[in-house]
Amino acid sequence: MSHIDSLKSLFSQINDVYSAASLLSWDQETYMPKGAGDSRSRTIGTLSRIAHEMSTSDEFARALEGAEQEVQHLDEESDEALMVWWARHDFEKAIKLPADFVHELSEVSSRSTQVWQVARKDDDFERFAPWLERMVALQQQAAEYLGYEAHPYDALLDQYEPEITHAEVKEIFDSLRRETVPMVHWIAEHSHVVTDEPLRRHFDEATQWRLAREVTAMIGYDYEHGRLDPTAHPFCSTINVGDVRITGRAEENFFNPLFFGSLHEAGHGIYEQGLPKSLSRTPIGSAASTAMHESQSRLWENTVGRSHSFWEFYYPKLQAAFPQTLDDVSLDDFYKAINKVTPTLIRVEADEVTYNLHVMLRFELESKLISGELAVADLPQRWNEKMEEYLEIVPQNNANGVLQDIHWSIGLFGYFPTYALGNVIASQLAAAALREHPTISDEIRHGDFSTLFNWMHRNVHQQGRRYHPELLIARATGEELSTSAYLGYLRNKFGDVYGLNGA
Amino acid sequence: MSHIDSLKSLFSQINDVYSAASLLSWDQETYMPKGAGDSRSRTIGTLSRIAHEMSTSDEFARALEGAEQEVQHLDEESDEALMVWWARHDFEKAIKLPADFVHELSEVSSRSTQVWQVARKDDDFERFAPWLERMVALQQQAAEYLGYEAHPYDALLDQYEPEITHAEVKEIFDSLRRETVPMVHWIAEHSHVVTDEPLRRHFDEATQWRLAREVTAMIGYDYEHGRLDPTAHPFCSTINVGDVRITGRAEENFFNPLFFGSLHEAGHGIYEQGLPKSLSRTPIGSAASTAMHESQSRLWENTVGRSHSFWEFYYPKLQAAFPQTLDDVSLDDFYKAINKVTPTLIRVEADEVTYNLHVMLRFELESKLISGELAVADLPQRWNEKMEEYLEIVPQNNANGVLQDIHWSIGLFGYFPTYALGNVIASQLAAAALREHPTISDEIRHGDFSTLFNWMHRNVHQQGRRYHPELLIARATGEELSTSAYLGYLRNKFGDVYGLNGA
Repeated sequence: MSHIDSLKSLFSQINDVYSAASLLSWDQETYMPKGAGDSRSRTIGTLSRIAHEMSTSDEFARALEGAEQEVQHLDEESDEALMVWWARHDFEKAIKLPADFVHELSEVSSRSTQVWQVARKDDDFERFAPWLERMVALQQQAAEYLGYEAHPYDALLDQYEPEITHAEVKEIFDSLRRETVPMVHWIAEHSHVVTDEPLRRHFDEATQWRLAREVTAMIGYDYEHGRLDPTAHPFCSTINVGDVRITGRAEENFFNPLFFGSLHEAGHGIYEQGLPKSLSRTPIGSAASTAMHESQSRLWENTVGRSHSFWEFYYPKLQAAFPQTLDDVSLDDFYKAINKVTPTLIRVEADEVTYNLHVMLRFELESKLISGELAVADLPQRWNEKMEEYLEIVPQNNANGVLQDIHWSIGLFGYFPTYALGNVIASQLAAAALREHPTISDEIRHGDFSTLFNWMHRNVHQQGRRYHPELLIARATGEELSTSAYLGYLRNKFGDVYGLNGA
Repeated sequence: MSHIDSLKSLFSQINDVYSAASLLSWDQETYMPKGAGDSRSRTIGTLSRIAHEMSTSDEFARALEGAEQEVQHLDEESDEALMVWWARHDFEKAIKLPADFVHELSEVSSRSTQVWQVARKDDDFERFAPWLERMVALQQQAAEYLGYEAHPYDALLDQYEPEITHAEVKEIFDSLRRETVPMVHWIAEHSHVVTDEPLRRHFDEATQWRLAREVTAMIGYDYEHGRLDPTAHPFCSTINVGDVRITGRAEENFFNPLFFGSLHEAGHGIYEQGLPKSLSRTPIGSAASTAMHESQSRLWENTVGRSHSFWEFYYPKLQAAFPQTLDDVSLDDFYKAINKVTPTLIRVEADEVTYNLHVMLRFELESKLISGELAVADLPQRWNEKMEEYLEIVPQNNANGVLQDIHWSIGLFGYFPTYALGNVIASQLAAAALREHPTISDEIRHGDFSTLFNWMHRNVHQQGRRYHPELLIARATGEELSTSAYLGYLRNKFGDVYGLNGA
């Protein structure tokens, strides 16, 4: 057996352990009995430790060294060579985190998430605060272990978005903010043009679930290798390449959360289901980065799911599914309703223009938590101040404010910026696909999503993690990462929606 | 840290890995997407191998040896001493099975079960046969690894029922057969006395599920630490002591499968939920044996669930749940219907008198498969011949014959006899509880199951696996294991049902 094969075999086994941990986590959010919480945290912690030990064992190190010798004779761009390069990259990171630390992080993450769920339900930040303090301390410790140059936050960011820094994100966000804050202001002055009242009518939940399953299947999410279940906070969970599950949350009197949430999670799911099977269970068989992932979810949720073309196709079906409910609402009014721009409290329900401001708020707060410039006890107040500053609204309670997201409880510090980067990349990729296939909009008007799906499959999903995100974007679009497609998209679309183009 | 504590810590981690494997298996039967099958088998296989490696590692052996020294100073009956004794017992067994063999067995088990599911659905024994041959060969190999004196089947039996042999089971079964075959014959001559037509009416499935949840909760199955889901073949799965799940199968036009199946699985679940928490994740924190387990499921399914006392309480509720359906059926006629004795094809639907004959058939066939006296290719014919011989009926197809049970596909050879032993033990335990608390029947008549529940909890569940089954029975009942309570119960009950007492 070659060292490369030994390395692949070890990756397969490590992958199996993570696969089990993923199922344990999925189950914890879906079907686990309430009384099982404590044991579940511990079990996930043990599996994480075992996987970490396997990834940092002497046996692994020997196989990796041997494989590095073997690939010297291969093309640098070959899958084997790329696999070994990324294996070394990940190994060097992994050995920086002690096994006991990884175990503790996993256990605290699981328990803290359970506490957060109760705290959110009861609007009880005090209950969550000690767990968040513990989590921040662990994240600070992780940054020290992983190492950084300018800002401890860089080390955390790098876990999700390789090679980008706090300073670079800040620069991109400053540029986005310069364009979007005036845009929000400009639209707010003409807010009477659009009403989303039709979306706040009664929508039978069972029908919502049926449509969510129908529409996600239409765009290409594969239910032979997936499923959609209810959870408090929607997510996409990959058990393995043949089993990628998504979740959603329905509101009886609000159409958006389940429908657009499902398109969003299905976008993630389609990416995972489309990863190269030949590379599955290797370090290059996964997604390229978290922002690339988010680009795929936002593509289907917004670029497609909130486009006029899509609703020319789907609006008659929606009207038929909810008899009488939308009879008095024209296609154009419905299209405007789903694209209404309003400062709101909840990030996952935010429109495309204000969304990034929610992300910026979290980025600023969490990077200050990590640097020690902000204490957990002061977080709710600072959250509310930032909301006032960016969106001119303040949550009446913490459940709709600082407690709304799962991320901090679960330990995803450095993750939020990837949401906004994902928006930028989604527009850039969609623009490139449209240049290559100008018929895509017409196809979507007829319910055919295959050209767009296949372009993404070929240029993004099937590439796995062979290339860094910037290189992947360059190969797919022929351009550097840029905010211009995204800002152009926002200007055109919301100019149209608010009838103010050229105003 | 003492060696005992090291050993406990290792057991905790091993237990976590098995816990993950249990969830993977539960999920495979309930919510896993169809396309994920192959990966799932492999993942479960990897976890089994990891757990086996942990249970047989040098680190484990050192901790065990150290702990054996430490417990020499403790009372032999102390939990620590008993834990270490069983740890040695299990270790000696585990090291007999090579890690690769355990891995292969687990993978084949998982895949073979998937093939069985399709084969059963399509009535296609040929499809399943090569997998069954592979499984038989693996079981024969396991028997050789484990070792035996008289019969290779002894080695397999011992995995479920410590210390019992093929010869002993044969003797018990011969004695049961001597009494039950004439009884079946005697009842068959008076079959017109009882009709089960009322059970074959239309029972709305949603209502069936509601009642199944209600009645299992009433007898003491805890839904804060459990759940009931639909599967093709009902089972009870312990993720851990705080998360014990049961499954069921509803038939729209037959009342029995879900109602009595759920009582049965809840009986298993109550045992698992009642195991001593202080000993959880140790070798003595589990159930005493498979037959002891079955005694608890049969107790609630039959001894209680098919008793006149129970239905004096529950029949008005049942009539109310299915309006008009049972208006013309008296309590006594319903009681007779659920206790009708008829030779049938399906073991899990068999009455209490013919049930053991189904088990004997399987015991005889599987012990001959293992000894090599019977080939898989000849199995369907021999199955049908035995059905003719014992029950005077022959299945029209293999789906209702040799393909009906999951056991052989999953690798549970040596397991079937524990079903009949469970019946025997259930009667013996129930008789002892009644001697101590003669009010139990009256309490059940008023829907109070607590005295019986608590007696089992104290005398069986809370004992864990401290004692061998025979010793546990002796401690609980003051008697040796004996078929007399069971045979007396059958004689009394079915004498009453068929109005033939003293005939």
